[in-house]
Amino acid sequence: MDTIGIIDMGSNSVRLILVRVFKDLSFRLMDEHKESIRLGDGIDQYSNLKEDKIQDALKTMKMFKRLCDAQNATKIIAVATAAVRKANNGQELIDRIYDETNIDMKVISGKDEAYFDYLAVSHSVFSKDGLILDIGGGSFELVLMKNRELIESVSIPMGSIDFAQKFKIKDPLTKDEEKKMMKFISDKLKEVPWLKSAKNLPLIGVGGTLRNIGKINMLKRNYPIDILHNYEVKTDEVFEIYDELKAMDYESKKSYPGLSSDRADIFIGSLGLVSAIMKQINSDKLIVSGKGVREGLFYNYLLEKNVYVDNPLMLSLENTTKIMGLDLVHSYQVRKLTKRLFDLLKPVHKITDDIGNIIDTSSLLHDAGIIINYYNHHRNSFFVILNSQVNGLSHKELLMSAYTASMHRKNKALENYSRYKLLLDSEDVQKIKKIAIFLRIAESLDKSMSCIVSDLEIEIKKDKVIIKVISKDNPEVELNDARTAMSAFKKLYKLDLIIE
Amino acid sequence: MDTIGIIDMGSNSVRLILVRVFKDLSFRLMDEHKESIRLGDGIDQYSNLKEDKIQDALKTMKMFKRLCDAQNATKIIAVATAAVRKANNGQELIDRIYDETNIDMKVISGKDEAYFDYLAVSHSVFSKDGLILDIGGGSFELVLMKNRELIESVSIPMGSIDFAQKFKIKDPLTKDEEKKMMKFISDKLKEVPWLKSAKNLPLIGVGGTLRNIGKINMLKRNYPIDILHNYEVKTDEVFEIYDELKAMDYESKKSYPGLSSDRADIFIGSLGLVSAIMKQINSDKLIVSGKGVREGLFYNYLLEKNVYVDNPLMLSLENTTKIMGLDLVHSYQVRKLTKRLFDLLKPVHKITDDIGNIIDTSSLLHDAGIIINYYNHHRNSFFVILNSQVNGLSHKELLMSAYTASMHRKNKALENYSRYKLLLDSEDVQKIKKIAIFLRIAESLDKSMSCIVSDLEIEIKKDKVIIKVISKDNPEVELNDARTAMSAFKKLYKLDLIIE
Repeated sequence: MDTIGIIDMGSNSVRLILVRVFKDLSFRLMDEHKESIRLGDGIDQYSNLKEDKIQDALKTMKMFKRLCDAQNATKIIAVATAAVRKANNGQELIDRIYDETNIDMKVISGKDEAYFDYLAVSHSVFSKDGLILDIGGGSFELVLMKNRELIESVSIPMGSIDFAQKFKIKDPLTKDEEKKMMKFISDKLKEVPWLKSAKNLPLIGVGGTLRNIGKINMLKRNYPIDILHNYEVKTDEVFEIYDELKAMDYESKKSYPGLSSDRADIFIGSLGLVSAIMKQINSDKLIVSGKGVREGLFYNYLLEKNVYVDNPLMLSLENTTKIMGLDLVHSYQVRKLTKRLFDLLKPVHKITDDIGNIIDTSSLLHDAGIIINYYNHHRNSFFVILNSQVNGLSHKELLMSAYTASMHRKNKALENYSRYKLLLDSEDVQKIKKIAIFLRIAESLDKSMSCIVSDLEIEIKKDKVIIKVISKDNPEVELNDARTAMSAFKKLYKLDLIIE
Repeated sequence: MDTIGIIDMGSNSVRLILVRVFKDLSFRLMDEHKESIRLGDGIDQYSNLKEDKIQDALKTMKMFKRLCDAQNATKIIAVATAAVRKANNGQELIDRIYDETNIDMKVISGKDEAYFDYLAVSHSVFSKDGLILDIGGGSFELVLMKNRELIESVSIPMGSIDFAQKFKIKDPLTKDEEKKMMKFISDKLKEVPWLKSAKNLPLIGVGGTLRNIGKINMLKRNYPIDILHNYEVKTDEVFEIYDELKAMDYESKKSYPGLSSDRADIFIGSLGLVSAIMKQINSDKLIVSGKGVREGLFYNYLLEKNVYVDNPLMLSLENTTKIMGLDLVHSYQVRKLTKRLFDLLKPVHKITDDIGNIIDTSSLLHDAGIIINYYNHHRNSFFVILNSQVNGLSHKELLMSAYTASMHRKNKALENYSRYKLLLDSEDVQKIKKIAIFLRIAESLDKSMSCIVSDLEIEIKKDKVIIKVISKDNPEVELNDARTAMSAFKKLYKLDLIIE
């Protein structure tokens, strides 16, 4: 077991995450710390980091070193971004950090920063395509991602702190000031000729500003799930927040619901940038990524260990299954049988959309509730899945997976679905019921957790469905248990179910 | 790591639990199976088990053996109770089970059964004193427990199935029939001279009938927590259920909310027994135990491994902390500091009741939510603790612990407390807030999880409280973090908080 400390020294804040990596390369985030020291305050390409900021940075790094030591971290990966990159005396700070903490901090280029953003997003956001935008204190990065591949990337040395230094954005924007700022932004974007290739793609937002847009929008909508990662904001709603905030003075912004008060003075510049980009590429939505450079550095570490990722959802599900100590063989067997039932019964369930992610998630994690308590574990599975931040699912898929899993035994979970009406309509509820009954039968067919069932055959008749279970042994326990689903099947599909 | 299979063959049902035992003797329930074969149907002390019941029993045991094998069980503990004990041909069944499954099933005496009930209850029910009653299909057991010690015990060969055979309890009870049945019960109870020593004690109920009383009462009250273990039913409410059911015919009983339909024909006999006992000892309540003979057998196994239990809550908390993989050293440090703050600040918080259990539970499990996800783990801790079936707490203590733990960071969890108004009043809420702030400070004071703080001293002045932190190192991280609680402290106690 290793513990890896990852430190990201940005212009706005210094952050540390501690990740535990087990022998089988499964991993779990253990701790997180943040110090907002605004290292980049007053920096441009020709100036020095201020001495008091250097002192703050050193103090923070010593503290982080102690936190890493306390957790017996076996490796510390530390990077510094725009502030140190831009400052004349950046190397001096790096040397002093090494002298005082023995941490070998690497100043990464803007291109590298963009690459780590890309790694974080491609491993964790549900959309395969998008324009990734990370706004930091001292730079912003853009990455064009298609089919989870990095196509183009750029870093522009202009961040939220720079906006605040260049324009009077703490106060209400005058028409004139806004015009100047927007002109400046559009000039900057002209430096990115490939931006036209991002036409119509969603914007995928990394970093505090983008998360904050998500948070504000969640509050406005009274959104029922408190998870920012993979949260979607419609373009119009981004514009609306911008229009509301640009007219406000500092005090009003500080009390604007959801806007973090230590960001109120610099927020509108970045928000203007987000709006301008979304307009320019004709994006229909912003997808918030809760994961950025630090997570990218971690995925890079995994890549170095040859953890190859074809599908981020499967990586995440396998990881979750392992760190929760679930029975892997049973989980995969239930997944196999659920898929088989779903495929063979297409003429019966008539679901045509791609719900593979929901089947994978609900079947592999159907027992996740056991980590809390065996009793009621199917009900607990709902809570665990909804809150486990499985990567690569939209919120709707996550919620549907949680419901499906919680119904792998007879369960009235869906009765409260109106709480989630922003995400689910009655058709979705019907789909959940349909998949859940396959999961329930599949789970029954591995009741003894011994993979006794090798395959299934289906015969569909006018008034009934016959599932033929193929097994070398006598799967009596399994058949008896599966048969308890017959009445629910009949109620749902108006067909008799025969299992033999 | 061992997996233990425990099988309990009763007159009503045969049950299997599979428990995983780790090297450090922490344990987790992995699976549970039940077959209701009513082995005891038609049995008395002079007759034989019926051949078809024997066949059912053999089939079930073969199936259970396969389930144990599939889980690589290293040990199977199997016992048979009243049905086999009473039947002339009980040994024959035991022999055939051995021949066909190689499982060495032990027929235990009624005294043993009572002892295992006692072990289960004394390890898991919050009350130290009580009269334990286990009603099985073929016998009932009574144990007088005081200060978690077994004082007296008895087994009487009369169970729920026997009642059904002796009286016409499937149908509405006539006045006459009821009188006969009650006379019969009171005669049986005369065989227990020490029952008078149980005067005024709560009745602690084990077994399906008693759980079912709890379930019915929960539904009636619209109880907000779906946990039977340690659920409390007032005596009058037990009587009320009895009065309602005794007048009903079989069909009405089958649809009575909460009454398990495969128990509807035999329930009223056992319920009459419960009512009679509660009346006789003047009990004020029934406490439901979800744990019985099987769990008792498991605790007996632990005792053989020299796991000595002084306090069942601490055993349970330590076990939970271990199986959830929480940081033991950090958990115990936070507990120590929380207790210290609570003790030193008595003149300030003025809480006089014994809330040690709540402090222990909330501090040791404050990070339990991490098993779901680091993000929002304090919020997740609420759900995990509430559903983890920590043993030895009343539901109120469990709920208060869950709230307290979830507030170890700034948190608005308590806003929804009205959901639990059956359990919490506004004074309780005030108590939770008061303890939670100590937990929050204690957690901050071990922010780096390195036990840097060795002790605390307190100075209480007219308008402020000074916490002096004693440490060999420089606990700067800890102090800064602890100071974030100052404004919440001021709001709650109207006193400034100084931490130095």
